[in-house]
Amino acid sequence: MLRPEEQLELIKRGTEEIISEEDLLKKLQKSYEENKPLRVKVGFDPTAPDLHLGHTVVIQKMKHFQNLGHQVIFLIGDFTGMIGDPTGKSETRKALTREQVLANAETYKEQVFKILDPEKTEVAFNSTWMGAMSSQDMIKLASQYTVARMLERDDFSKRYSNNKPISIHEFLYPLVQGYDSVELRSDVEMGGTDQKFNLLVGRDLQRTYGQSPQIAITMPILEGLDGVNKMSKSLNNYIGIAESPADMFGKMMSVSDELMFRYYLLLSDKSMAEIELLKKTVADGSKHPMEAKKELAVEIITRFHSAEEAAEARTNFEKIFSKHENPEDMVEFTASSEDKLVDIIGKLQFAPSNSEARRTAKAGGVYLDGNRVENIDIALDKGEYVLKVGKRKFAKLTVN
Amino acid sequence: MLRPEEQLELIKRGTEEIISEEDLLKKLQKSYEENKPLRVKVGFDPTAPDLHLGHTVVIQKMKHFQNLGHQVIFLIGDFTGMIGDPTGKSETRKALTREQVLANAETYKEQVFKILDPEKTEVAFNSTWMGAMSSQDMIKLASQYTVARMLERDDFSKRYSNNKPISIHEFLYPLVQGYDSVELRSDVEMGGTDQKFNLLVGRDLQRTYGQSPQIAITMPILEGLDGVNKMSKSLNNYIGIAESPADMFGKMMSVSDELMFRYYLLLSDKSMAEIELLKKTVADGSKHPMEAKKELAVEIITRFHSAEEAAEARTNFEKIFSKHENPEDMVEFTASSEDKLVDIIGKLQFAPSNSEARRTAKAGGVYLDGNRVENIDIALDKGEYVLKVGKRKFAKLTVN
Repeated sequence: MLRPEEQLELIKRGTEEIISEEDLLKKLQKSYEENKPLRVKVGFDPTAPDLHLGHTVVIQKMKHFQNLGHQVIFLIGDFTGMIGDPTGKSETRKALTREQVLANAETYKEQVFKILDPEKTEVAFNSTWMGAMSSQDMIKLASQYTVARMLERDDFSKRYSNNKPISIHEFLYPLVQGYDSVELRSDVEMGGTDQKFNLLVGRDLQRTYGQSPQIAITMPILEGLDGVNKMSKSLNNYIGIAESPADMFGKMMSVSDELMFRYYLLLSDKSMAEIELLKKTVADGSKHPMEAKKELAVEIITRFHSAEEAAEARTNFEKIFSKHENPEDMVEFTASSEDKLVDIIGKLQFAPSNSEARRTAKAGGVYLDGNRVENIDIALDKGEYVLKVGKRKFAKLTVN
Repeated sequence: MLRPEEQLELIKRGTEEIISEEDLLKKLQKSYEENKPLRVKVGFDPTAPDLHLGHTVVIQKMKHFQNLGHQVIFLIGDFTGMIGDPTGKSETRKALTREQVLANAETYKEQVFKILDPEKTEVAFNSTWMGAMSSQDMIKLASQYTVARMLERDDFSKRYSNNKPISIHEFLYPLVQGYDSVELRSDVEMGGTDQKFNLLVGRDLQRTYGQSPQIAITMPILEGLDGVNKMSKSLNNYIGIAESPADMFGKMMSVSDELMFRYYLLLSDKSMAEIELLKKTVADGSKHPMEAKKELAVEIITRFHSAEEAAEARTNFEKIFSKHENPEDMVEFTASSEDKLVDIIGKLQFAPSNSEARRTAKAGGVYLDGNRVENIDIALDKGEYVLKVGKRKFAKLTVN
């Protein structure tokens, strides 16, 4: 086991805030002296089991704790998931059945255990204790917190001052999450920066219930591929962990050099010393930044697929982009000699709209057998073609 | 059964607000046509079973409904009573045991059934349904109301803007009270003006649960004997319904003529026609206002004790005050010839303090055998005396 100070150093990597570092060190010292692992809780919402790299930032941190010998707890918030949002205002808060929750939990575990060691991970469902709680106990729990304090939460205060409705049950959910910490006797709870308030509620409730308050650790929200906005599905700037190796590779190669090092910090298993060395070799020109990006892509793809698939993705990518060759596995598509090229591109879904396809062509992004095509409102002669749209979309066309 | 319009007229007597009169008339019409009594709910807090006349204003109104053939429901809020105020901030909200709640309920019933007909009164405990409610159902209930709406309640908004803490469970109590109306399918709920918000929550919840919303009827808060402040124990301006006939009589006689008619309106079983006639005879001098007060006192004492005791109280009162005779049943007290009169008065608790006793004497309020005594720092010779302090305190003194 590493000494507490060394553990702290490893845990601090990439964190946004630790409340407080001093108390965490004390807990690490006690754990070290008594040879008793810390209990490290992270809660997951069972409504959205489809993860992208942004979600894995906190899971990477769980892995750090796990590597240090601590007990990580993967808590599935199924109790609230099964209630959903009874006001029907939130699409993402539809009530789930017990079966849906269990199915989502399985998907979650599959994804999460690509990072964590399933043998060393405690999986818990909060319906275990919350389902047994009476309305009377719920009222007692609600008595532990004040309205003013709850309204201090950033999103609540904004909604309240903007006259946007807040249903009273929304005040109960943070209390439920906090009470989970009491039941699990967690020493540490982690989450994104948006979870800070809820993590602090857990601290307060643990104090009320006579426990030592958990350390709250927030992890930064990961920037998406654009390097500006947070990674999210709706902004389409994400890398999903179930995406194909080729897509992952291509997306990873599209990020800026700066963002690449941010991803190294928050997503890579490389040590900080290794990352510092990498930065140096990129800075002094002994390593091309694209090579550093490829190595990161290979590491991430290996994690979620396999080393073989990662190597293959790299080879394919290099064929297409570095060596300007066509990829090995192109989409095959059969069209008629009456189809216009713009419609073929549309059917292939290589562009979001016909006008977008025309713009891409004007800008020089559409090739047929390596020849640029600026006007795509044309039909093609019968025969076979390799169509390339943008940087990475290829298709083998057969026109009859 | 009276026609709906006539019923409405009787129900309106003395009310502060009816939300809404129009809807109440519709409910009365429907009830009349279908020969189906309305369900009229009033909730009582089981923590304070010791009633004074102020509490009976709403019970009188229940009696009006009962006399009209409707079903009154005496709801004991034992569920919340057994939770109390878990924050420990409220003295009056200590958690009660099941036994205490039942004992209080018995006391309540004893008192309330001096006004209502026990045969025709439905007694309900809200623990019946609330005790069976899960925390999940509680959260669903909480989802039916918004924070902003709850903060509109007068006392909440004041406390919030004055930075006085409101515990979140306090938001749940009005919802529980409102949900009681859903369970009881009440057509009408009544309470003091301070209950208006809670009655409206019941209306909203009934709508949510697909029921026709109850009519909310608020009754005024009864003025105390001073005619200014609300009747309350802490202001010592109350007539308790368990007080002795003599005390009730004396207190009733102390009110102003104006307040007497207010009490007639809100407490008497006399019809409005009879009360109008009484007002006329008092106004034209054919009846002395003191006689009208005596009649009211007799009516009230008869209600809570008996006709005989009421008559006796009247006779005694008249002996003491009207005919300036000594009362029939005086306190007997034995003192030593070394005791000063001021100390005897103190021991008899005829004055709140020695200085107050001296002031009363100076003002001409202390008599020994009918003779005014201004200096009471004197000892008395051996013998027997009748001591009178103020208007209504008499004692038979034996000095040895």
